[in-house]
Amino acid sequence: MSTSQLFYLADLFGVAVFAITGALMAGRKSMDLFGVLVIAIITALGGGTLRDVILDNHPVSWIRNDTYILVATLAALGTVVWVRMTRPIHEKGLLIADAFGLAVFTVIGTEVALQYAMPSSTAVIMGIMTGVAGGVMRDVICNEIPLIFKKEIYATACLAGAVTFVLLRMLETPHWLDTGVAMLVVLGIRLAAIRWRFSLPSFHLLDRE
Amino acid sequence: MSTSQLFYLADLFGVAVFAITGALMAGRKSMDLFGVLVIAIITALGGGTLRDVILDNHPVSWIRNDTYILVATLAALGTVVWVRMTRPIHEKGLLIADAFGLAVFTVIGTEVALQYAMPSSTAVIMGIMTGVAGGVMRDVICNEIPLIFKKEIYATACLAGAVTFVLLRMLETPHWLDTGVAMLVVLGIRLAAIRWRFSLPSFHLLDRE
Amino acid sequence: MSTSQLFYLADLFGVAVFAITGALMAGRKSMDLFGVLVIAIITALGGGTLRDVILDNHPVSWIRNDTYILVATLAALGTVVWVRMTRPIHEKGLLIADAFGLAVFTVIGTEVALQYAMPSSTAVIMGIMTGVAGGVMRDVICNEIPLIFKKEIYATACLAGAVTFVLLRMLETPHWLDTGVAMLVVLGIRLAAIRWRFSLPSFHLLDRE
Repeated sequence: MSTSQLFYLADLFGVAVFAITGALMAGRKSMDLFGVLVIAIITALGGGTLRDVILDNHPVSWIRNDTYILVATLAALGTVVWVRMTRPIHEKGLLIADAFGLAVFTVIGTEVALQYAMPSSTAVIMGIMTGVAGGVMRDVICNEIPLIFKKEIYATACLAGAVTFVLLRMLETPHWLDTGVAMLVVLGIRLAAIRWRFSLPSFHLLDRE
Repeated sequence: MSTSQLFYLADLFGVAVFAITGALMAGRKSMDLFGVLVIAIITALGGGTLRDVILDNHPVSWIRNDTYILVATLAALGTVVWVRMTRPIHEKGLLIADAFGLAVFTVIGTEVALQYAMPSSTAVIMGIMTGVAGGVMRDVICNEIPLIFKKEIYATACLAGAVTFVLLRMLETPHWLDTGVAMLVVLGIRLAAIRWRFSLPSFHLLDRE
Repeated sequence: MSTSQLFYLADLFGVAVFAITGALMAGRKSMDLFGVLVIAIITALGGGTLRDVILDNHPVSWIRNDTYILVATLAALGTVVWVRMTRPIHEKGLLIADAFGLAVFTVIGTEVALQYAMPSSTAVIMGIMTGVAGGVMRDVICNEIPLIFKKEIYATACLAGAVTFVLLRMLETPHWLDTGVAMLVVLGIRLAAIRWRFSLPSFHLLDRE
């Protein structure tokens, strides 16, 4: 199996994991089955779509290849069936899978921007956006303050991974190496943050209104 | 009057109805007159704009033809005047008009995607998006959980209509026929759902956090 | 210094001011440092990005020139440091700076649309969108009903300024004149609204559900 095939599989895995987090959030809001499906798809594909629209990268990924929609749909339906069977949700397993999805999406987003000959700063932003925008859309539609702004280090892991990827590409390391290392950076930081509950200092401004 | 002229009128009717639902929601939030106008326009044109941006279909409809903005504006102002005159709002009439607008938008969205030679699955998604995204934007900006995820069958009617349209186009039926039948499917399902309060089972996940 | 250089500096000033309003809102929500940064950047650049994506004006401003991201980042970090040092926030000064930023963004948005040979109505909408959409995104993500729909005349000032700009361009006045007058219209209306608490009548619809 080639590196690019492996990467494609990892991408689909990321889509499935993000769709599951979307379906679970929709379940917390007691949405109907169709709502669950829509939130799952938006969570899984929203970040990449926003990136592609801003970069003018058409057709966007899930239009080019309808496997993405299919995988997100199956993951959402599988989640509903699983929960209905009153199987427990392995929260820690889900967090770890989510960290893996985040790593894949961040590296893909950064790489797409670099292919468009974007400056490094834009590529880093696109990497972060691809990783986190889907989750932000999920939370905004479900009327929650986006989780990423509240919890342990999350988007900061994307930032570190995207910067790592850009630096390694400047050094022209082999593709499997820069991809792998950048993903490990995201994954490592995120897992450490979960394990030891790292967080950035928060900025609390008293409301004087 | 030709089929395409009829269809254009139906489209403008859909814009007006969606603008009214936007204005009414803005009124529930006690927005000022300008806020009412903006929410009305976003509700009426948001779905089509999102579709066009994702499909890279430029210029988007309301830029190509400013009648759309004009119709949405007049519908919103008319709503404010009507309510100020303490005239009752005929809720059932509004729901039926909304179902009609939903039918038109869904078919238009599906057709635009097919004209771009998109695969069937993408065309169906574009149809649903055109039908419901404006209402989702209205609800998100007004800080409500989008109605479509909560109430009787709504987006599911779009799904059925869009699938019907795609299938009929494969059979190469005349344009007035596939358009008409697909619209009737949306309209029929939605009206039946309103009349008998059909709903999809909801997926309720207890929050264990 | 040429007019266009002055205008560019005014644009960067607008970016900084809007970033500060974003950082302060994020602080009210006790977000972490990264969240503050992201909200600041979205507030400062969201309106222009939405305009460019809808107009198909690529690459969008902050991709073409990474000074924008840099200025928004520095303004956000400066805000956090300032507040941490428990320095007071001069609310009135901030409102006046915000009015200035609004004036610049509105005129830029209108001008970009006219350069694309858009009809006048579209240009006006693009001007308003550039001025206010960033703030709407900030408020939606932070789970607030957008301020612009609630407070004293705000978007209406953009409307007046954009219309003024379009009319002056039709008269083919010199560039510094139409730009300057349109900005003064926005600034004047907004400052008068703050000073004397002008507001549009609100549309209050009792909820009968």
